[in-house]
Amino acid sequence: MLIVGELINSSRKMVRQAIEGRDSALIQRLALSQAAAGADYIDINCGTRIDDEEETLQWLVQCIQEVSDAPLCIDSPSAGALAAGMEAAQRNGKQIMVNSITAESGRYAAVLPLLRQYNAKVVALLIDDSGMPETAADRIRIADRLIGDLIKDGIEPGDIYLDPLVKPISTGNSFGRDVLEAVRYISERYPEVHKICGLSNISFGLPNRKTLNQIFMVQTMTAGMDAYILDPLDQTMMGLLYGSRSLLGDDPYCAGYLKAHRRGLYESRGR
Amino acid sequence: MLIVGELINSSRKMVRQAIEGRDSALIQRLALSQAAAGADYIDINCGTRIDDEEETLQWLVQCIQEVSDAPLCIDSPSAGALAAGMEAAQRNGKQIMVNSITAESGRYAAVLPLLRQYNAKVVALLIDDSGMPETAADRIRIADRLIGDLIKDGIEPGDIYLDPLVKPISTGNSFGRDVLEAVRYISERYPEVHKICGLSNISFGLPNRKTLNQIFMVQTMTAGMDAYILDPLDQTMMGLLYGSRSLLGDDPYCAGYLKAHRRGLYESRGR
Repeated sequence: MLIVGELINSSRKMVRQAIEGRDSALIQRLALSQAAAGADYIDINCGTRIDDEEETLQWLVQCIQEVSDAPLCIDSPSAGALAAGMEAAQRNGKQIMVNSITAESGRYAAVLPLLRQYNAKVVALLIDDSGMPETAADRIRIADRLIGDLIKDGIEPGDIYLDPLVKPISTGNSFGRDVLEAVRYISERYPEVHKICGLSNISFGLPNRKTLNQIFMVQTMTAGMDAYILDPLDQTMMGLLYGSRSLLGDDPYCAGYLKAHRRGLYESRGR
Repeated sequence: MLIVGELINSSRKMVRQAIEGRDSALIQRLALSQAAAGADYIDINCGTRIDDEEETLQWLVQCIQEVSDAPLCIDSPSAGALAAGMEAAQRNGKQIMVNSITAESGRYAAVLPLLRQYNAKVVALLIDDSGMPETAADRIRIADRLIGDLIKDGIEPGDIYLDPLVKPISTGNSFGRDVLEAVRYISERYPEVHKICGLSNISFGLPNRKTLNQIFMVQTMTAGMDAYILDPLDQTMMGLLYGSRSLLGDDPYCAGYLKAHRRGLYESRGR
């Protein structure tokens, strides 16, 4: 299981203000607290900074690296911004993760050289030149092609994190099931390739969103999802994640679950 | 999805005392409240009443039928007790459920005639003359045989509810995964046959049992489980069940989920 902490994102008001005021302490606290809570990678996204995304990414990376050697996930649709962020991020010697490449021909061609240059892990979104996937079959078709191309182009299967693109079930009854089906297919067909997603899209437009997001995490883990982009400070979510791993047999002697219990992750919940 | 309400069980202190004092009002409240909370069947188990199980079952059935025509699940390992309970239960004209038959030759031969006589639904435990199943392969082997025998002996596939037998993950790392694998197999191989289980065994010996039981419900639903023996008054569990159904695409327009929301099932949880 790989957790990417999502909190350093300039679309969040607190982060936007910290960037505007060059408040490095806040960014550093967000990085350290996410790593302490179990994040394996810290995502850095300042895509809302259209005019100075490259410079802002570099500042954020530098802030974090002053206090932490946590692995970093450079998050942008722009190859230029990724290049700037990766150049800064590689200084800590940890393998970089890139969020994201797609099967769109232009984006694929622009991002691939960066993955090779830095030997990076990559989030690969199941989008191609025909657009966003609708069905499970769309996702499977794009996955087959994208995995084939990435491996042919020298990326290790174990460095690929396919993101099946989660869409709100309020807009399509089968949108959850489609993701589960695609994840099951990928897990069986490509056992070395990882599967990653964010969770909040699934519940858009419905009440009790946190509950739905939690359920969808457990469902996708059951189908084979093995990485998430989430808020690791959400103790309920992290508690469910550790419990789910144990119940799936991926946690010998329930050691990770019992450690989470001792850390107090279940204190607000029923016994 | 079929919910069997588990609260009328003489191993619970409140029920034991109501039986001893012939407190029909308490039994009636337990039946009505479970039916109102979404139970499709009301389980009746007085297996701890060794000396007068048959008579007690009949009294419990009569109590409930004075105030409710809810379908009843007669729950005993004893064919004699089942016969007594079913004779009383059939008066409301609803299809009876029997809990349970197994693939053990003696029990199978004793319970089968009752199923045929009353055209009953049946919980079929995956136990045979060699004992409790250990692995997923054991469960699959017993399931193949038990389904084959029941159908050959005239039971409709849609009246069969296979119970894969849930054992604590504290005693075996793979015991959750084994159940999921067996449920997936049965769902693919026998699409008309149902799968049922209780949830509390999985968490025996571990802290935060309710949380683990909730996770295991979501996991088993994802694998294809479509019936549970549970406490329908547990709003958290029922809320997760309705949310999980929606996310699995089994709830057009999320209508069941939104109804559960309006009934207040999520009020104690995060938005």
